[in-house]
Amino acid sequence: MKKVKVGILGATGSVGQRFVELLENHKLFEVVALCASERSVGQKYGELMKSRWKISGDIPEYVKDIVVTSPTPSETQGVQIVFSGLDASIAGEVETAYAQAGVHVISNSKNHRMVPNVPILSAEVNPEHLDVLQYQKTPGKIITNSNCTIMGVTISLKPLMDLFGLESLFLFSMQAVSGAGYPGVPSMDIMGNIVPFIGGEEDKAEMEPQKCLGRVENGQIVPADFKMSAHCNRVPIFDGHTVCLSVKLKKKVDSKEIIEAWKNFRGEPQKLGLPSAPANPIVYREEQDRPQPRLDLMTGNGMTVVLGRLRPDPILDWKYVVLSHNTVRGAAGAAVLNAELIVNKGLI
Amino acid sequence: MKKVKVGILGATGSVGQRFVELLENHKLFEVVALCASERSVGQKYGELMKSRWKISGDIPEYVKDIVVTSPTPSETQGVQIVFSGLDASIAGEVETAYAQAGVHVISNSKNHRMVPNVPILSAEVNPEHLDVLQYQKTPGKIITNSNCTIMGVTISLKPLMDLFGLESLFLFSMQAVSGAGYPGVPSMDIMGNIVPFIGGEEDKAEMEPQKCLGRVENGQIVPADFKMSAHCNRVPIFDGHTVCLSVKLKKKVDSKEIIEAWKNFRGEPQKLGLPSAPANPIVYREEQDRPQPRLDLMTGNGMTVVLGRLRPDPILDWKYVVLSHNTVRGAAGAAVLNAELIVNKGLI
Amino acid sequence: MKKVKVGILGATGSVGQRFVELLENHKLFEVVALCASERSVGQKYGELMKSRWKISGDIPEYVKDIVVTSPTPSETQGVQIVFSGLDASIAGEVETAYAQAGVHVISNSKNHRMVPNVPILSAEVNPEHLDVLQYQKTPGKIITNSNCTIMGVTISLKPLMDLFGLESLFLFSMQAVSGAGYPGVPSMDIMGNIVPFIGGEEDKAEMEPQKCLGRVENGQIVPADFKMSAHCNRVPIFDGHTVCLSVKLKKKVDSKEIIEAWKNFRGEPQKLGLPSAPANPIVYREEQDRPQPRLDLMTGNGMTVVLGRLRPDPILDWKYVVLSHNTVRGAAGAAVLNAELIVNKGLI
Amino acid sequence: MKKVKVGILGATGSVGQRFVELLENHKLFEVVALCASERSVGQKYGELMKSRWKISGDIPEYVKDIVVTSPTPSETQGVQIVFSGLDASIAGEVETAYAQAGVHVISNSKNHRMVPNVPILSAEVNPEHLDVLQYQKTPGKIITNSNCTIMGVTISLKPLMDLFGLESLFLFSMQAVSGAGYPGVPSMDIMGNIVPFIGGEEDKAEMEPQKCLGRVENGQIVPADFKMSAHCNRVPIFDGHTVCLSVKLKKKVDSKEIIEAWKNFRGEPQKLGLPSAPANPIVYREEQDRPQPRLDLMTGNGMTVVLGRLRPDPILDWKYVVLSHNTVRGAAGAAVLNAELIVNKGLI
Repeated sequence: MKKVKVGILGATGSVGQRFVELLENHKLFEVVALCASERSVGQKYGELMKSRWKISGDIPEYVKDIVVTSPTPSETQGVQIVFSGLDASIAGEVETAYAQAGVHVISNSKNHRMVPNVPILSAEVNPEHLDVLQYQKTPGKIITNSNCTIMGVTISLKPLMDLFGLESLFLFSMQAVSGAGYPGVPSMDIMGNIVPFIGGEEDKAEMEPQKCLGRVENGQIVPADFKMSAHCNRVPIFDGHTVCLSVKLKKKVDSKEIIEAWKNFRGEPQKLGLPSAPANPIVYREEQDRPQPRLDLMTGNGMTVVLGRLRPDPILDWKYVVLSHNTVRGAAGAAVLNAELIVNKGLI
Repeated sequence: MKKVKVGILGATGSVGQRFVELLENHKLFEVVALCASERSVGQKYGELMKSRWKISGDIPEYVKDIVVTSPTPSETQGVQIVFSGLDASIAGEVETAYAQAGVHVISNSKNHRMVPNVPILSAEVNPEHLDVLQYQKTPGKIITNSNCTIMGVTISLKPLMDLFGLESLFLFSMQAVSGAGYPGVPSMDIMGNIVPFIGGEEDKAEMEPQKCLGRVENGQIVPADFKMSAHCNRVPIFDGHTVCLSVKLKKKVDSKEIIEAWKNFRGEPQKLGLPSAPANPIVYREEQDRPQPRLDLMTGNGMTVVLGRLRPDPILDWKYVVLSHNTVRGAAGAAVLNAELIVNKGLI
Repeated sequence: MKKVKVGILGATGSVGQRFVELLENHKLFEVVALCASERSVGQKYGELMKSRWKISGDIPEYVKDIVVTSPTPSETQGVQIVFSGLDASIAGEVETAYAQAGVHVISNSKNHRMVPNVPILSAEVNPEHLDVLQYQKTPGKIITNSNCTIMGVTISLKPLMDLFGLESLFLFSMQAVSGAGYPGVPSMDIMGNIVPFIGGEEDKAEMEPQKCLGRVENGQIVPADFKMSAHCNRVPIFDGHTVCLSVKLKKKVDSKEIIEAWKNFRGEPQKLGLPSAPANPIVYREEQDRPQPRLDLMTGNGMTVVLGRLRPDPILDWKYVVLSHNTVRGAAGAAVLNAELIVNKGLI
Repeated sequence: MKKVKVGILGATGSVGQRFVELLENHKLFEVVALCASERSVGQKYGELMKSRWKISGDIPEYVKDIVVTSPTPSETQGVQIVFSGLDASIAGEVETAYAQAGVHVISNSKNHRMVPNVPILSAEVNPEHLDVLQYQKTPGKIITNSNCTIMGVTISLKPLMDLFGLESLFLFSMQAVSGAGYPGVPSMDIMGNIVPFIGGEEDKAEMEPQKCLGRVENGQIVPADFKMSAHCNRVPIFDGHTVCLSVKLKKKVDSKEIIEAWKNFRGEPQKLGLPSAPANPIVYREEQDRPQPRLDLMTGNGMTVVLGRLRPDPILDWKYVVLSHNTVRGAAGAAVLNAELIVNKGLI
C-alpha cells in the first residue's frame, strides 16, 4: 500500500518535534515536507535542529536531510495532509490556505476549533463528527484536536455521559511546562513555584468539552448540554497534565459501574486497529495514590489516559483524577490518530 | 512585665523547629522546656540539632544550651503553656496529661480538633470560640489550630460568610512537601511528580472549616452549615499551600464588594496589636497571575493570607486562589498567635 | 537452550526493582527467587509491591505471583546465580553464604569490592579480571560492579589509558537522588537545593577506578597507578549522574585522537553480542552543551555512557563530561551484563 | 549628610531589580533615575514592572512613581554614580558615555573588566586596586565587579593567598538559573536536568580571579600568578552558586590554620563599617554536609560567603566548598558595597 504524503507545519516547535518523532516509520504516512518560519527555510532539518531538538534521543535519521520550506501550499506540492503545530498567531491563515489548496489539515491550533462545521476530533470520543466535513466549503478539510488539558478529560467523560448522563463538572488542572511550548515558561517563573493562571486556558477548558462531546445536527456540531467550571494551574512538571474532577451524573450509579464503564471503553481506533491506537484508551488504577506523572505517563506509549481515585463527592456525585500526556495524547499523538482515522474511513 | 514560661512538645520536628524560631525574643513568652522522644532526652538542643535543623539560618542561640526533656508534666515543672507539634500517634495522650496537670496546651495536632468543646482557634476568625474553654473539665485547657490547608481558606471565607453568607464550596489544593514534616516525602516520590493523594487530608479539609466557622451554643461549637468538597494534591514545592476555590454565596454581590470585604477585614489580633499579628490578615493581589509561592509566601512574615484571581464561576458564584504559608500561618505561627490571644484575654 | 535459574537478593529495593525490570523476558536467565527482609517474606511480590513499585510502568507480570523468600541459600534451592542489590549492612554476610553454598553472586554492594581476588567487573573494561575467580576459595564466586558514579567514568577512561596512558584525574560529580535508594533522600533536603556531600562516596570514587582499571597479577588485581581526586555532590535530579573530569595523559594527543578512541571503543560484550550490551559503550556528542540527563540518559537503553565537551585543561591536559544512568549502567544493568559475560565464558 | 544621587542602568532586568531592592532606604545613596530600553521609557516604574517584578515581596514604594528614562547622561542629569546591570551587548558603549560625562560607573557587566586600569573590585579583597582609577582618562571612573561565580571564590582565596601562597586551583561550579537573568533559562531546558555548559563562563572563571587577586604596578593591575581550570554547570537551583575547589598552596599548612585564616578574615568594608558590609565576609561551617543553598544562602543577608568541607586533596593540597548568593554578593550587593567604598574613600 502506498503511503500518504504528509507535511508538518511548525516543524521546529515542540509539537512539531513530536510529529517528527511519531511519524518515524509510520505505516500510513510519509513525511515529505517540513515547514517553518522564514529564518529556517532552506536549511537541512538535521543541521538546523542540532541544538534545538528537545526530545530525548536523537533527531530521527529520516528527517535530517529534508530541507525546510515555507508553510505555503505552493512550496509543498504533492502533500495530501498537513499536520499543523503552528502558533495561533499564524495558524488560522495558513491552515485556511492549505484547505483551499485541497490539502487536509490536521491541526493542533485553537484557531478553527470553535467553527461549527470544524470538528474537535477525538478519535475514540466523536468519530461521527467527521460527518460535518462535507459541509466545509474548501476542497481540503480542517480537523482540529482539543486543547491538551481537555483531551484526557473528555475521554474519561465519554463513557460516563453515554451510560449515565452528565450534568455538570468542576475541573482543576495542574499542567506541565511543555504545554507552553519552547522556550515557553522561564525557569525563574516556575522552578519551586506554582502559577495559578494560564492565559486563555480556562476559557478553552470551559468551551471545548461540550463541543467535543456534542452531537451532529444539520451539518453542524451542537455542543452537549452540561455546565463546567475550570481552574487551570501551571506546576513545575515537565510532561503530563493532572486534572482533578468533580462530576454530577444524571443517573445514580455506584463506583463499580463507573470503573466498569471505563474499563470496557473502546473506540473506533481500537476497533479499526489504527497504528497509534493504544490497546485501552483508559486505564483505571486501583492504588489510592495514582495516577502520577512519574509512574503512569507513558502508559500505552503516552496514548492511554490514566484514571484513579474514584470516590464520592459531597456536593456533586463523584470525584476522580485524570492524567494524560499533554504532548502525545494531548497534542501530536491525538492528531496523528485523527489522521489515521480519516485515512481509514476513506476520506482521503 | 513578666514573661509566661512555655515549653515546646516535639521540639525536634519541623513544626517544633518553627516554634523555636518564632519564639526567639518573643515579647510574651520565654521558652524554658524543649521536649522530644526518649532518644533525644538529656542532650543539649544545639548539639542534638546540629545536622537536623532544617530552617534557613542558624539554630537560635537562646535554645542551644537547653537540655531536652520528656514531654511529661513532671519533667517540665513551671511551664504554663505548651506548644505541641507532636505527631498524632502520641499527641492525644500527652496533651491530655498536660491539661490535667494544669498546663494550657496550644496544639497543632489533629487529635482533639473535633471534640465539641475544644476550639479550632483561628485568632482572626473565631476568637469567641474561646468561650467553650470553661466547659473543658481539665484545669489546663486545650486549644487547637486547624489543618494547614484549611487555615488560609477559612480566613478568606470569614468576611464572605459574615457579609454575604456561604452555601457551598469546592477546594482544590496544591500542597508543599514541608506539610508532611521531616523526613516526610521521599524525593523519589515527588521530584518532577505530582501525588494526587494525601492520607486523611481530604477528610480534615471537609470537616474542619465548618467547625472553625461555626458558632458557640451551650458550651459547644456548632459547625456552620455549608457543603464542601475537597481535592488535595502534593506538588513539588517546598513551602506554601496554594488552593483554588469555587464558592456559592447566599447573597448576589459583585467582585468589588468581595475584594472590599477582604481588604477591610481585620480581626482581634489586629485590634489588640498582638505581637505575631500581621497588619493585614488578607492581602488581595490585582495581577492576573498571583498569588505565587515564590513571590507572595512571605507577605506579612508568612502570617498574611494572599488572595488573587477573583472571577465568576460558571456553576457556583465565584472562583479565587488562596496562598498561605503552611508552616507559619498554617501551623506554628497560628499557634503562637493563638497563645498571644489567650494571654491577652487574661485566660492565663 | 535452557535458561539459568537466578534469584534477586533485596528484590524490593530500588536496585532490586531494576533487576526485576531488566530480567523480564531475558534470553539467558529465569528469575525463580525473589528475596527480601523478614517482614516481606511469604507475600506475593505483586501484592507486596503494589504501592512500592517506583519504576515507570507496571510491575512485570512474570514476578507478580512469586512468593518472597529469605535471602538464604536453603530457601532458594536450584538457583545458580543471585543478583544482589542488598544494603551494605547485610550484603557481606549474605553474599558470602551464597558463595559458600556454590551459588555465584553478582553483587551491586560495596562490601567485597576491595578484596584483591574479587573483581570489580565492568564487562567492557576488564573482562580479564575474571581470571582471579579461580583464586576465590568458595565454590560460588563473587563478582561485584563498581560504585554507580565510577562506572561511566572508568568506561570513558579505558580507551584513553590503553592508548595514551593515564597519570591523574579530577572528578566532580552531580549525582541523582535515585543513587541513594528508596526512601533515600528526603525531599526537604534536596528540592531546590544541593548537598555537597554523600557519605563514603568520595572514598569509593578515589579507590575503585584504580582497581577497575588495574591488571591481574598472581591471582590478584593490582590497581592501576594514577592519582585521583573526587568531589561528590547530590543534586535535584531523579536519574543520571553527570561527572566533570580533568585528566592528565602520559602521551600528548589532540582532541581528534581522543574522540576517535572513544568512538572506536568496543568491548567483549559487543564482540560476543551479549543481550544487554549496547551497540556502543560510548557515544560522544559534538554539541557544545551535551550530555544532558534529560536528553541523553536513555541512549542505548541506559547502557551507553554519553560523553561531551572535550576541551583542553589549563592545568592537566583535557576536560570532558560523562553522563551515565546510575541505576542501569551504574548498577543493575551493569550487573546483568556481568552475569551474561560469565555465562557466555562458560564460567557457570 | 546629603545623599549621593544615583541612577540604575538596566533597571528592569534581574540585576536592576536587585539594585532597586538593595538601595531602598540606603544611608548614602538616593535613587533618582531608573534607565531602561526605549520601549520602557516614559512609563512609571511601578506600573511598568507590575507583572515583571521577580523578587519576593512588593516593588518598593520609593521607585513606583519614578518615570523610566533612557540610559543616556543627558537624560539623567544630576546623577553622580550609576549602577549598571546592562546587558553586555550595550553596556560597553553606555558605560563609557557615562564616564565621559563625569559620572562614576559601578558596573556588573563584563565589558570593561579586563581593561588593565579598570579594577575588578571586590571590596574585601582588593581595595588597593582603586589606585588605578586615576589612570583612567575619563572624568567619571569605571569600576566593575567580577563574574558572579568568581566573587565568592576569590573572597575565599584571598586570606589563603596572603598567608600561604596560591599555586593552582580547580574550580567546579553548580550555578543557579537566576545567574542567566530573566527570562533566561527556559524551564524545559533545566527542570530535572543539568546543562554542563554556560556560554563564556569558563573563560571568565579562568581569567578574572588572577586579576582580582593581582597587584597594582605602574597604574595597572598585574594578574596574580596561579593556574586555574574551571568547569561550569547550570543546575536546577533558583539562587546560589555552589563551587567545589581543589587548591595547591605554596606553604604546607594544616586545616586548623586555614579555617583560622578564614574566620579571622576582615576587609576594609568591615573596618570602615560600610552599610552593606556583613559582619563576616566568610563563615566556615563545621557540619560535614554544608554549605547548602537552602540553609546557608541568606547568611549575612546574602553578603557572606559560606564555606565548608575543608579536607585534604589527594593530588593538590586541599578541597573545599564555596557557596555565595549570585545576585547579591555575586552581583548587585557587591556593586553597592563597591560604591559605598569609593564614597567612603572620598573618591567622589
